[in-house]
Amino acid sequence: MLAFETLAETLTRDGVDVPQVMQRLKALQIETPSWGYGNSGTRFKVFKQPGVPRTAFEKIDDAAEVHRLTGCCPSVALHIPWDAVDDYDALADHAAERGVRIGAINPNVFQDDEYKLGSLCHPDKAVRDRALDHILQCCDVMRATDSKLLSLWFADGTNYAGQDHIRRRHERMQDGLEVVYRALPPGSRMLVEYKFFEPGFYHTDLPDWGTALLHCQALGPQAQVLVDTGHHPQATNIAHIVALLLEHGKLGGFHFNDRKYADDDLIVGSVDPFALFLIFNEIVDALDDPTTEATAQAIAYMIDQSFNIEPKMPAMLQSVLNVQTAWAKALLVDRAALRDRQDAGDVLGGYAVLQAAFETDVRSLTARAREELGGAADPLAVFASSGYSERAVADRVGAAQGWGG
Amino acid sequence: MLAFETLAETLTRDGVDVPQVMQRLKALQIETPSWGYGNSGTRFKVFKQPGVPRTAFEKIDDAAEVHRLTGCCPSVALHIPWDAVDDYDALADHAAERGVRIGAINPNVFQDDEYKLGSLCHPDKAVRDRALDHILQCCDVMRATDSKLLSLWFADGTNYAGQDHIRRRHERMQDGLEVVYRALPPGSRMLVEYKFFEPGFYHTDLPDWGTALLHCQALGPQAQVLVDTGHHPQATNIAHIVALLLEHGKLGGFHFNDRKYADDDLIVGSVDPFALFLIFNEIVDALDDPTTEATAQAIAYMIDQSFNIEPKMPAMLQSVLNVQTAWAKALLVDRAALRDRQDAGDVLGGYAVLQAAFETDVRSLTARAREELGGAADPLAVFASSGYSERAVADRVGAAQGWGG
Amino acid sequence: MLAFETLAETLTRDGVDVPQVMQRLKALQIETPSWGYGNSGTRFKVFKQPGVPRTAFEKIDDAAEVHRLTGCCPSVALHIPWDAVDDYDALADHAAERGVRIGAINPNVFQDDEYKLGSLCHPDKAVRDRALDHILQCCDVMRATDSKLLSLWFADGTNYAGQDHIRRRHERMQDGLEVVYRALPPGSRMLVEYKFFEPGFYHTDLPDWGTALLHCQALGPQAQVLVDTGHHPQATNIAHIVALLLEHGKLGGFHFNDRKYADDDLIVGSVDPFALFLIFNEIVDALDDPTTEATAQAIAYMIDQSFNIEPKMPAMLQSVLNVQTAWAKALLVDRAALRDRQDAGDVLGGYAVLQAAFETDVRSLTARAREELGGAADPLAVFASSGYSERAVADRVGAAQGWGG
Amino acid sequence: MLAFETLAETLTRDGVDVPQVMQRLKALQIETPSWGYGNSGTRFKVFKQPGVPRTAFEKIDDAAEVHRLTGCCPSVALHIPWDAVDDYDALADHAAERGVRIGAINPNVFQDDEYKLGSLCHPDKAVRDRALDHILQCCDVMRATDSKLLSLWFADGTNYAGQDHIRRRHERMQDGLEVVYRALPPGSRMLVEYKFFEPGFYHTDLPDWGTALLHCQALGPQAQVLVDTGHHPQATNIAHIVALLLEHGKLGGFHFNDRKYADDDLIVGSVDPFALFLIFNEIVDALDDPTTEATAQAIAYMIDQSFNIEPKMPAMLQSVLNVQTAWAKALLVDRAALRDRQDAGDVLGGYAVLQAAFETDVRSLTARAREELGGAADPLAVFASSGYSERAVADRVGAAQGWGG
Repeated sequence: MLAFETLAETLTRDGVDVPQVMQRLKALQIETPSWGYGNSGTRFKVFKQPGVPRTAFEKIDDAAEVHRLTGCCPSVALHIPWDAVDDYDALADHAAERGVRIGAINPNVFQDDEYKLGSLCHPDKAVRDRALDHILQCCDVMRATDSKLLSLWFADGTNYAGQDHIRRRHERMQDGLEVVYRALPPGSRMLVEYKFFEPGFYHTDLPDWGTALLHCQALGPQAQVLVDTGHHPQATNIAHIVALLLEHGKLGGFHFNDRKYADDDLIVGSVDPFALFLIFNEIVDALDDPTTEATAQAIAYMIDQSFNIEPKMPAMLQSVLNVQTAWAKALLVDRAALRDRQDAGDVLGGYAVLQAAFETDVRSLTARAREELGGAADPLAVFASSGYSERAVADRVGAAQGWGG
Repeated sequence: MLAFETLAETLTRDGVDVPQVMQRLKALQIETPSWGYGNSGTRFKVFKQPGVPRTAFEKIDDAAEVHRLTGCCPSVALHIPWDAVDDYDALADHAAERGVRIGAINPNVFQDDEYKLGSLCHPDKAVRDRALDHILQCCDVMRATDSKLLSLWFADGTNYAGQDHIRRRHERMQDGLEVVYRALPPGSRMLVEYKFFEPGFYHTDLPDWGTALLHCQALGPQAQVLVDTGHHPQATNIAHIVALLLEHGKLGGFHFNDRKYADDDLIVGSVDPFALFLIFNEIVDALDDPTTEATAQAIAYMIDQSFNIEPKMPAMLQSVLNVQTAWAKALLVDRAALRDRQDAGDVLGGYAVLQAAFETDVRSLTARAREELGGAADPLAVFASSGYSERAVADRVGAAQGWGG
Repeated sequence: MLAFETLAETLTRDGVDVPQVMQRLKALQIETPSWGYGNSGTRFKVFKQPGVPRTAFEKIDDAAEVHRLTGCCPSVALHIPWDAVDDYDALADHAAERGVRIGAINPNVFQDDEYKLGSLCHPDKAVRDRALDHILQCCDVMRATDSKLLSLWFADGTNYAGQDHIRRRHERMQDGLEVVYRALPPGSRMLVEYKFFEPGFYHTDLPDWGTALLHCQALGPQAQVLVDTGHHPQATNIAHIVALLLEHGKLGGFHFNDRKYADDDLIVGSVDPFALFLIFNEIVDALDDPTTEATAQAIAYMIDQSFNIEPKMPAMLQSVLNVQTAWAKALLVDRAALRDRQDAGDVLGGYAVLQAAFETDVRSLTARAREELGGAADPLAVFASSGYSERAVADRVGAAQGWGG
Repeated sequence: MLAFETLAETLTRDGVDVPQVMQRLKALQIETPSWGYGNSGTRFKVFKQPGVPRTAFEKIDDAAEVHRLTGCCPSVALHIPWDAVDDYDALADHAAERGVRIGAINPNVFQDDEYKLGSLCHPDKAVRDRALDHILQCCDVMRATDSKLLSLWFADGTNYAGQDHIRRRHERMQDGLEVVYRALPPGSRMLVEYKFFEPGFYHTDLPDWGTALLHCQALGPQAQVLVDTGHHPQATNIAHIVALLLEHGKLGGFHFNDRKYADDDLIVGSVDPFALFLIFNEIVDALDDPTTEATAQAIAYMIDQSFNIEPKMPAMLQSVLNVQTAWAKALLVDRAALRDRQDAGDVLGGYAVLQAAFETDVRSLTARAREELGGAADPLAVFASSGYSERAVADRVGAAQGWGG
């Protein structure tokens, strides 16, 4: 791999303000999800891995190790009830001791038997109320853990035409979200996630960014849209959606992962790294624009993946690295040149500017950033030789929680 | 084919209010597009057909013949400049003489050389102004022809990442639409169409209903969304979009066609008749609901297809018939039973109610409706034996206008 | 619903040979899968249903009940090891007593922990041998149950570029299949299933009919391709694939289900009934053609679905009914008229012939066929009032097997 | 940009045999298509560009200029009749004088009015014979120009279910191809291209690699499959298809372009550069394997794109550069390490090996290769300042041929 100094020299010669790039590169913080450290699988099989954490505390240990190695993952998202504990103070303290903090709280309203036909959209008010109660309890967890984000994904949908009434379900969703909105802790936000399909196979109540936006607009400024990069129809231009949500002040955060087919939940950037770069390109652009800067600054970058066959910790590290790579490349885009080519109507000129940044080998740049943040230049190698996995396998015996709790 | 009386008897026995169904069936009016009567093709070849109309007047003749045969196509959409004439009064009179009227006015801002990089979103203000001028002239045509609909489709988009700035283009679109909105004739509406892709292959400025809705919301009540049934990503649930737009008062109209792959512009219902039925099912539902009734009543049903290899007039007749078929089946849905099954959470019960309507053979029902409207029971057969085509081939010699003017 | 006699009269008047149609309609036999009666779900949740069978014997009871009600489901597919028993003679006898027989044997080489990286394609020979042993044991089950079909689906694939070597995996698959081929009982066939994706998300070793065909060609005449209607990329013309496999003598059978998005495994025909009709249209055409008749006659029609939220027995009945509906409509196609229109190059004429058949309401036709086969005119209604479900809930207490064994 | 020497030093330190990489990098030859230099467009509009070549001779001039600037594009594909001339000797001589040669001959059997319903699959034998005659004439052009490749794309397909008989069309195709096969000049090959859809929207007679392979297998060793990278369903793993065709000795060549949605015909690698890299990764792997080496060595690399809104020459240069980039990265893959990780079942290890190659900035490597081949380090910059475009605009006045001849 290229030496950092060599790369920096080349970049500087090409007009890049390397210190500024390094500063912005180091500013990126990526939240990892507690459930990413546990077992997961497809509908066909959950392959259990030895050494996966058995408790929320152990998941935080893993997240802390990822932060120790990368320097850029200071928070961990919780999933309730998978991570429910009796004493959230203790959990938050445990996190603090390990050098991380509690991030977004993710309610689960899709795995109880009652939710077979939905949660907030269920035809039966009793089930809707049950789901609402659970989400309101998650608002309490936010208070207990000083979390500022409520991350909402609903599996609500139907499998057959005629199964339920689409518009009435839409109204029920809005009614439920309004109750949640009023219960948000001060200074916090709720992020509304959408998904094209699965587990609903006829319709999904929140299928696209437009529907999520309609709800958030009706709710108010504390409600924003959450973009999961794996939740779109084939060929969707996600960078475009990101730009539109930024423009309208409603981009709240990301669930990063990659996919080739459906919601494959693979390592982010492993299928289409150029598409990931283009997303970050829109964000850097918005950071430099006063009308969108505040929204862009507040974006929550979160990983949400399913490591079914690969080892969890290396997979998480690889994802973090890939996000940093895309971010670094987006920071290298010559924005003055890009604007110049765009204003001139130069079809290929703008593309060439982006391509120049994308083709740059930034591995030594991100390595240096991690080192300056207290992490490792090569987290995967350090982890492999650290004995962490072996200790986990030895220590964590007994019932390991699956992805689904 | 089943006799009408036999079918009516069976339906009545099953609890259907046949006279009411017939009344609503006859109330459906479908607008045909002037350009559907002219030559069209793919990028590979426009196969020219003998007898296609050479002028806007002759296109209206064809549209009038379709109305004569079906009884349900009283208006014809114009495309400017393909249908531009010096004297719009004369054109409107010609239409009236033939028993039809001018429907939606469709500006064309994608075929001048200046529009290579877009129209309202073009980086060059001079081009944007040119496009705007053209659309404003179309508002004048609306006044001249007493048209109440401005139907807006924009080919604006880019082919390469970096080619232009997505958010600035979005702002330019909004700015342009606002000028148009203020120029709308009183009592008229503008319908904003979206399209997933083509001719733009990196991004399209109006790619989905969410983006179109954002613009329409900002504009005001005279702006609504136009759903072209061929303009979505694969697997999109269009009935769901229809329901959401109805719920929010923003469904303005349809461009009907069918597709298997991309924007194939085939005969409506020829690929997936069940999906078409499900769209109409949402509309009938909305007509019966006081909160959505007004929006549903005002929907403009328009055909927009490209008959590349099939004869134009039979293809248009077939499309009208297929729309009527779907509409008739949607009217047969037992809504009380449907609601009952939905409220009970009966997954298969609601589907069974829809299926019962869809499986009904309604051909004699729509045939009777056409007859009662003054059309033909079997428009295709009547047309085939009418000599209309032969006369057109004989009379319409000389340069026939292609689809692209 | 229309009376059978009324429909028959109308059809006869239109030139249909109703007795012949009834005969062919009754000849269709549809195999139901043992696993369709058990619990299933998505990766998010398996919603357990009360009363689902606990053993292979009880699954056969359910399958027999479906046959009793429909008259056209005389065989049941087994999944090994989900349905493994000590005494297959006893199982076969149990089936015979209930009026059904054992159909295809489906090995499972994707749920042991060893299969994390594949089965016949696994990089480790020991795992490949294990998978092979299991499949060979399934050949023994075929002998023990007098089954004539080995139905092979492999979950083999990779999740990341570079994870394994595509060509070497292809060779391993061929090597394994050859061993299996040689172990087939005399007079039996092996059906090789393909699937576009899932659970592999980078590549699947058997992703399409072309790959499956390559293997089957190399194996010999006892190897044929199995078409699962939910295993294709979006917009794939499955009827076309069916036609090609028929033409080349390699269409072995179907796994019927429907999908809107991915491999949704919904009730067959519930998403796109016209596409199902077009598949059967190719089959009826091939039955009437001496060059393809033998292949078409030997097609194994099997249901393979996942009833996640709907009650299992009604869902299975609904699927059988939908297959019959499509089959009946395909039988009504006026093949002489169709050929005439096709030979004349009449683009819309051939479509009109198909549409006439598809729009016919055949419910009374299939009802009559079921009655003549000893089943019920309305199997869903008879089942609902039969008390079967209630008895199953009462009797089948204790650990019910899930879909995944 | 990084200096070549710096990169070479780093690579050498990392164990790369840089001289060998440079040698293989320079060995890649990419054919450009005559039609890529002419006007093209979508069905909505062909935007005419000033300076495009008016004759086959001028197209060869443009192709020669691309070769002069890149050093790796020594041949040019012809399209007949777009490039039909009276004296093919003169055309071949003209090419030789300009330093290039005639490459693949591409018959056109889709733009005459007779081909509305197909060419070799047309229901009318007279049309089939006409198409066959044209293709046989193209074999004569091969002899006249010493071309060794016949590149066959058929637009044959249907737009509506029932329009024609799928199996009979398949047989007609096979019959026609057999006649062509027998007419091939000695030592030449015919490449059979497939395409998922367009211009046919119900079915395409050659929709996928499986169908093309069936034809080629029946024809013999001189018939191979042509992979156009834009001709697949969404999410298709093209690298997998490439691997399978290599394994079976039937990969004849490529038509390179990129797409996000349908057959967008964009600059290759501009949408998904990682997917392009993975294709070349399979090829390099096959070159190193004795069982596939001969097939891989004979692959014809051809560009086939539609530059609708971007200037033709820079677009073609950009495409060539992007192919070189992907090729260079594939050459950098550490194959021993890759095999080691694959054999070990290390899910992420193999991916990491590929990623290391992909993330390398190879721009100075390909620049050096071009220089050593006699081309320019930066062809785009050299071209921009060369005055070539300006001269073309000045000289090439009068009727410029469109893409469609």
